[in-house]
Amino acid sequence: MKNIKVSIWGFGAMGSGMAKMLLNKKGVEIVGVCDRNEARIGKSMFEVLGIEKGDRPEVIINPNIDEVLTEGSCDVCLCATDSFTKSAFPRLKLALEKKVNVISTAEEMAYPKAQNPDLAAELDRIAKENGVSILGTGINPGLIMDLLVVCLTGCMVDVEHIEAKRVNSLSPFGPAVMEEQGVGITVEEFNKGVEDGTLAGHVGFAESIGMIADAIGWKVDKFEQQMKPIVTTIDRKSPYGFAAAGNVAGVNMTAQGFVDGEVKLDMIHPQQIEPEMEGTETGDYIVIKGTPSINMANKPEVEGGLGTIAMCVNMIPHVINASPGLKTMLDLPVPRAIMGDMRDFIQR
Amino acid sequence: MKNIKVSIWGFGAMGSGMAKMLLNKKGVEIVGVCDRNEARIGKSMFEVLGIEKGDRPEVIINPNIDEVLTEGSCDVCLCATDSFTKSAFPRLKLALEKKVNVISTAEEMAYPKAQNPDLAAELDRIAKENGVSILGTGINPGLIMDLLVVCLTGCMVDVEHIEAKRVNSLSPFGPAVMEEQGVGITVEEFNKGVEDGTLAGHVGFAESIGMIADAIGWKVDKFEQQMKPIVTTIDRKSPYGFAAAGNVAGVNMTAQGFVDGEVKLDMIHPQQIEPEMEGTETGDYIVIKGTPSINMANKPEVEGGLGTIAMCVNMIPHVINASPGLKTMLDLPVPRAIMGDMRDFIQR
Repeated sequence: MKNIKVSIWGFGAMGSGMAKMLLNKKGVEIVGVCDRNEARIGKSMFEVLGIEKGDRPEVIINPNIDEVLTEGSCDVCLCATDSFTKSAFPRLKLALEKKVNVISTAEEMAYPKAQNPDLAAELDRIAKENGVSILGTGINPGLIMDLLVVCLTGCMVDVEHIEAKRVNSLSPFGPAVMEEQGVGITVEEFNKGVEDGTLAGHVGFAESIGMIADAIGWKVDKFEQQMKPIVTTIDRKSPYGFAAAGNVAGVNMTAQGFVDGEVKLDMIHPQQIEPEMEGTETGDYIVIKGTPSINMANKPEVEGGLGTIAMCVNMIPHVINASPGLKTMLDLPVPRAIMGDMRDFIQR
Repeated sequence: MKNIKVSIWGFGAMGSGMAKMLLNKKGVEIVGVCDRNEARIGKSMFEVLGIEKGDRPEVIINPNIDEVLTEGSCDVCLCATDSFTKSAFPRLKLALEKKVNVISTAEEMAYPKAQNPDLAAELDRIAKENGVSILGTGINPGLIMDLLVVCLTGCMVDVEHIEAKRVNSLSPFGPAVMEEQGVGITVEEFNKGVEDGTLAGHVGFAESIGMIADAIGWKVDKFEQQMKPIVTTIDRKSPYGFAAAGNVAGVNMTAQGFVDGEVKLDMIHPQQIEPEMEGTETGDYIVIKGTPSINMANKPEVEGGLGTIAMCVNMIPHVINASPGLKTMLDLPVPRAIMGDMRDFIQR
């Protein structure tokens, strides 16, 4: 049987991380990489990754997607280019129209119906028309604050209130994330960034809340979200970040989903560099009040970068096996690590 | 749209618990109950449950399954009669041949391929022939020591070793469980019970290990299981159990799955009455070594009885939606609580 063929669109931290993971798996090969970063164009993927090519076929990083993705060129395209459904849409459409299955890292694509129902319907239509499927996933949204919550409600007779809390460290992340999350800036600058929308913070609360509510049959009648600075009282330094005492070490994001006028879904997601320096213990926490109740902790938290890389790669067989259309993590079988030959996971 | 119709076969703790849960859900009704317990035959299901019938149609407990289950009589039959695939098989076959979808609480049915591949293949064949689907599930096997483990590996690049530990209290359970698990007997009696097979202990390790290994692509080349008494140093008393100091308060079950000659799957499941009396903290624990690692705890443990009841009821829509055949929790979308109208969960 032939290897599963994968193309990667976007070769930043996520795209290149997925390539590294794939090169260690059996029964799968990378057949194309598209990236527009000048420093990478025309180079060997192996050179960029710092991995021996061995006897694998060469893959040259190409800025032209029409040359990388052609009908029949691959089984799935991993699209790691965007955070938002709207900006990802033209790229996802193009890939689907090449009759290629798609997995998107865009946070909003984890549940695009939440904020872009028209685009979600359009992607579903295009995917079906081309006989392929498309999924958005990642560590969060995608697993920790939504799918894992849903899975745990499976053993509950009754659910009263859900709290999902992810307390994570931004220390492993690079300069782009430091800037997006406001690490090192003053509180004034932070507040201005929130106001004018230049600070990204966490993208995905609307998606996580939408996913959970739809999964268990709650109707959310109001959604609110807050973004507050985490001000450090001491100097904190991480490989790519620095926050002086009195400045911003990260962002505390919170959101609430109201059902029948009451807050029934609470999302709490403070992310900062060097949380341990002020006694913050990182972890993923899910507390569900109901019958029976759930009181889950995973300590320390699943690292966001590695987690997203793994989720996207591990969902490849499920996406290939899926019926055509737009899928979410709610529609497909549970994610799972791929330790054997990836071809054995494909239903024929 | 008409309500989803459910029949229940076996009206012990599990069957009657599922009935109570169903009576609190929207869009679903119980249309038949089959049970051969003399004390219940001919009685109203509502009377046995101690719940007001209100304006719901009467359901009389009937010992004759051929009268309860007829073609078109219901959408799904919840079969809560057995622990083992072999003993459940004739009943499951009968239900499938009535063209009714089936959910079984039999522990071995959570992954029947593990110990009864021939019967699993036969059930798959019969289900397909009759255009219906069949699933075995419960809290464990079914979720805590298998599906939840699988789900958590989904965010892992690489898995090295899996430990699933469920430390639970037997105190909420009745006399049958006290007897099955050896609560209150002497160590000598316990050892004799293990030897002659009269002590059940936990049923499901082979199933949980089989499910996890198949899910992630490990080949298990050896499976071992141990059953040891938990000897109490003090008198312990629960509503239905008593263990004098020096006698057995419960059973410590352990199992290992070997992959490439190494133990890669460790299952640890001590169950006893009043564990707190000797400082044992109950909980569900999943520790997965790999990249990244997982270190999950749910404290206290999900109560087994309620958990199994909820899993079976919550999987009803997934089983109705499934393509014909024998399904496992690996094949279907993640379990989820049903808080809305159950009919909204059905794909048309």
